[in-house]
Amino acid sequence: MIHSPEMRRDPLSGRWVVFPKEHGPLSLREIPRAASFEVSPEECPLCPGNEAYTPGEVYSLRPKDGPSSFANAPGWQLRVVPHKYPVLRIEGGLERRGEGVYDCMNGVGAHEVVIVGPDHRRSLVDFSEADLEELWLSYRHRIWDLSRDSRFRYVQIAHHHGHHQGPHGGASLSHPHSQIYALPVVPADLQKELDSVRRYQEFKERCLLCDIVRQELGERERVVYENRGFVVVAPYASLVPFELWLLPRRHHRAFQEMSQESSENELALLSTALKTALRKLYLALEDPCYSFTVQNAPFAESSFHWYLRLCPVLTLSAPTGSAVFINATLPEVAAHYLRELS
Amino acid sequence: MIHSPEMRRDPLSGRWVVFPKEHGPLSLREIPRAASFEVSPEECPLCPGNEAYTPGEVYSLRPKDGPSSFANAPGWQLRVVPHKYPVLRIEGGLERRGEGVYDCMNGVGAHEVVIVGPDHRRSLVDFSEADLEELWLSYRHRIWDLSRDSRFRYVQIAHHHGHHQGPHGGASLSHPHSQIYALPVVPADLQKELDSVRRYQEFKERCLLCDIVRQELGERERVVYENRGFVVVAPYASLVPFELWLLPRRHHRAFQEMSQESSENELALLSTALKTALRKLYLALEDPCYSFTVQNAPFAESSFHWYLRLCPVLTLSAPTGSAVFINATLPEVAAHYLRELS
Repeated sequence: MIHSPEMRRDPLSGRWVVFPKEHGPLSLREIPRAASFEVSPEECPLCPGNEAYTPGEVYSLRPKDGPSSFANAPGWQLRVVPHKYPVLRIEGGLERRGEGVYDCMNGVGAHEVVIVGPDHRRSLVDFSEADLEELWLSYRHRIWDLSRDSRFRYVQIAHHHGHHQGPHGGASLSHPHSQIYALPVVPADLQKELDSVRRYQEFKERCLLCDIVRQELGERERVVYENRGFVVVAPYASLVPFELWLLPRRHHRAFQEMSQESSENELALLSTALKTALRKLYLALEDPCYSFTVQNAPFAESSFHWYLRLCPVLTLSAPTGSAVFINATLPEVAAHYLRELS
Repeated sequence: MIHSPEMRRDPLSGRWVVFPKEHGPLSLREIPRAASFEVSPEECPLCPGNEAYTPGEVYSLRPKDGPSSFANAPGWQLRVVPHKYPVLRIEGGLERRGEGVYDCMNGVGAHEVVIVGPDHRRSLVDFSEADLEELWLSYRHRIWDLSRDSRFRYVQIAHHHGHHQGPHGGASLSHPHSQIYALPVVPADLQKELDSVRRYQEFKERCLLCDIVRQELGERERVVYENRGFVVVAPYASLVPFELWLLPRRHHRAFQEMSQESSENELALLSTALKTALRKLYLALEDPCYSFTVQNAPFAESSFHWYLRLCPVLTLSAPTGSAVFINATLPEVAAHYLRELS
């Protein structure tokens, strides 16, 4: 029995798994099965007026004056709060230790929720570019703040839309929100991507993702949309139909290093790219479930080129599965279809 | 547009993705959404009497004499046939080539279906040990046969039960069957496991999985069942609740190298271990969906220790997702619960 969150490393895959809860005797009811649940705005802890149901906010977008200017009062446009039932705990030092052949550590980390707007039913596809820009600013602020904690090596940002299962393995609220995890480890799947970029750099002395951007803009077959800052492509080896990558044209190792101040407001260009991508998926696939993650360089890693990975969820699958990936829709076909939509 | 199956490698994750079909203009109806579909035994192409609806069998278990002894006649107990709509094609040479920064190859491989029994509704949990032993013999025969084809580097064996999505990404028949894929590449996720075992071997001069078996039998906290040949454990860093590994006590690099002839009939011991594991999951989780895969050494790889990975599917998730894995059920709790069931 453990009484605080613990992280354990799978010795074969190298993946760290978080075991969040205090565990007592097991009943079948404790095994999470539901994908998400609906509550009315009156009962929703993420809706305005119910601020007391969440921990105190760590970031918000509010009027400068008046009663709505106070922290944790209604009247906000965006709020970031620690998760009420965090899977990782912010307190404590890192204790990484062995258990025979195995490796574990105590579950130190941050788990926050970005309530992307006050409206219970307004999802990102309905956001204006200005609204989305505020969302990037909240992500950037939280990454900057969490990066000052020397225990953390990576901040994972993920957003899930619709009734599929998030990474949490449990039930999830329907009010639109993003999840932020600050982790004391670099996820194994991301490490694989970092290794690929590093090896390419060693061999070619060029950035793999810069080369991908150049090739995609040259061939155009998989390009869905482009502006001065971003290229939206259906990736060459899409794992699932209509997967999209939002690739920054400029080489930034991490999301939080993009500028808003220069003549090219890259956050505004990202907003336009995401709004276009979400709108096209909405029209093509009839408001599909989707997830996006910010694929970012860890704090200590210099050779990466961040991108945003957006996957519609059309088919559901087991969390762990076969190593054979089959995709019935070529990215060229998906890109052609999405390009034509307006 | 491609007119035969193509495999493409994701330059970041290293995963090969199969794009199986001839592609024309896209309609929404073509995007696979359904998890599986029910047909009656009369219409089921895998049921006895409908042998003409499948390609000719490559292996079967049949009476020695009489009309049922003929290939593709009814009266069989088990049948292996090529998939009617294979995602990979058996014909053709390997043409691995670059496309700029990307890598692709033509989709050469085998895609077979093991019809595990004639009964449309009898799933593996109802099989006798003798029935399961026949299933292992069919897997072994097919691996042996496919290993003689020098184009193939790995044979993936997977079995899915219930209405979740298989790796196929499309609809699947409900008649119990396993899938066999012979691949011209080693899957990236398996390669990661091979690398872990190799690095451990270099450092410790011992087999990682032999050490895991020893440690689990010593601690006993995560052991669900054991016999002379196999240990069933809830793995230390289970990705999902009630994940189970069937670990062979004896070090065999690959499944097909286990013996049936010696005093220890390892295939019979594996049958008893799987039957026990499936029965316990059936009782604990009320006939859950599940998948198992044979985690096997590729043909050219000597340092591995094969095992069977069995994952109940309690929550559904996006095929690609976050790199943060959260499991609300400790393996010690799951193992304790399953041990007590009889």
